[in-house]
Amino acid sequence: MAPKAVVLLSGGLDSTTTLAVAQALGFQVYAISFDYGQRHKVELEAARRVADHMGAVEHLIVKVNLRTIGASALTSEDPVPKGRTVEEMAREIPVTYVPARNTVFLSLGLAWAEALGAQDIFIGVNALDYSGYPDCRPEYIEAFTKMANLGTKAGVEGRAFRIHTPLISLSKAEIVRKGLELGVDYSLTHSCYDPAPDGKPCRACDSCLLRAKGFEEAGARDPLVG
Amino acid sequence: MAPKAVVLLSGGLDSTTTLAVAQALGFQVYAISFDYGQRHKVELEAARRVADHMGAVEHLIVKVNLRTIGASALTSEDPVPKGRTVEEMAREIPVTYVPARNTVFLSLGLAWAEALGAQDIFIGVNALDYSGYPDCRPEYIEAFTKMANLGTKAGVEGRAFRIHTPLISLSKAEIVRKGLELGVDYSLTHSCYDPAPDGKPCRACDSCLLRAKGFEEAGARDPLVG
Repeated sequence: MAPKAVVLLSGGLDSTTTLAVAQALGFQVYAISFDYGQRHKVELEAARRVADHMGAVEHLIVKVNLRTIGASALTSEDPVPKGRTVEEMAREIPVTYVPARNTVFLSLGLAWAEALGAQDIFIGVNALDYSGYPDCRPEYIEAFTKMANLGTKAGVEGRAFRIHTPLISLSKAEIVRKGLELGVDYSLTHSCYDPAPDGKPCRACDSCLLRAKGFEEAGARDPLVG
Repeated sequence: MAPKAVVLLSGGLDSTTTLAVAQALGFQVYAISFDYGQRHKVELEAARRVADHMGAVEHLIVKVNLRTIGASALTSEDPVPKGRTVEEMAREIPVTYVPARNTVFLSLGLAWAEALGAQDIFIGVNALDYSGYPDCRPEYIEAFTKMANLGTKAGVEGRAFRIHTPLISLSKAEIVRKGLELGVDYSLTHSCYDPAPDGKPCRACDSCLLRAKGFEEAGARDPLVG
């Protein structure tokens, strides 16, 4: 019986590639997504398509209202930055930063992993093209793992959790290449922070620009932009 | 202007006493409670009463559905243990353990603290009468703090978070005494895991028994049991 792994799935390029990596490593995937009041709710549709198409054993969408907590352009009607260069993105933590988001999401992934009896959790964070998010760095992931093993029944009883970050040191181009090798269908995914009402990507926010750069450098065509 | 502190408030004896301690230390209190699918929802009413009566600046109730995640008697219809001695409670992690609950709650408290510009978070965990919960121990709190400061914009920029656990080494009797000294009205609070439909405590679950022992050893009368 293949071991279970919880995979944090936003339906974007990175988390979808991460799901494919978890499956390639032989895990049964339990995908978890978050309905957190994000303005780009279309990503939950993408997560559903990805989980369904790629054969996740279960797909759990947890409602957690971060909109009431405030302080991010991703959970408000504030404009998201457009047309920035990668250098500009790297210079500071952007307004699209959601306070403690990965901590909240990993905590809920941890709770589900413990309930399922799984010891493995996958998250598609990336420190290279990380756009200034502090909760995408290896030292943060290590600290989370330590905390998780001290604060759970499973951890205390010796069934230690492992947080897998298979993309953490890859460039966007390397992520795209890895996904294509693993047969990922990127037409199922969604990356834009500020999609049109019909779900089409804006092609100007940080997330769209990083995605475009990744496909371009990988010498591949993004099925979303034709 | 008094500094802001986020206080995790369940409406029980411990968190209410913690709120009083935070105020006595001069903080403006921002109370946060969680509607997480608990069977004892009456605790949210208690939290509302406490926050209102004690003058919290704001009281945020975050919905986060831990019931879908499963694996606890507190979020299911499974029976909770009754009539146990303190020694029996201490022997093992009980079925009322909710996977990673304090990690999920502290993460959301951290997110709100960051959004508010607060550096101080109070949680009423207790390692002495801790009933076997791993996420109530000092080493867990230390690990959480380290993770929080690596994974947030505020932490990275040098506005370090502090997690305050004023009750961590107190007995239940010492907690009751401290609260009474600070003028806490314990008739506002609620502790039972399995209250009657009218909200009355069962007086037999671990939480009721620890509370009764605390009042008894403090030589005080619990206003809830008359």
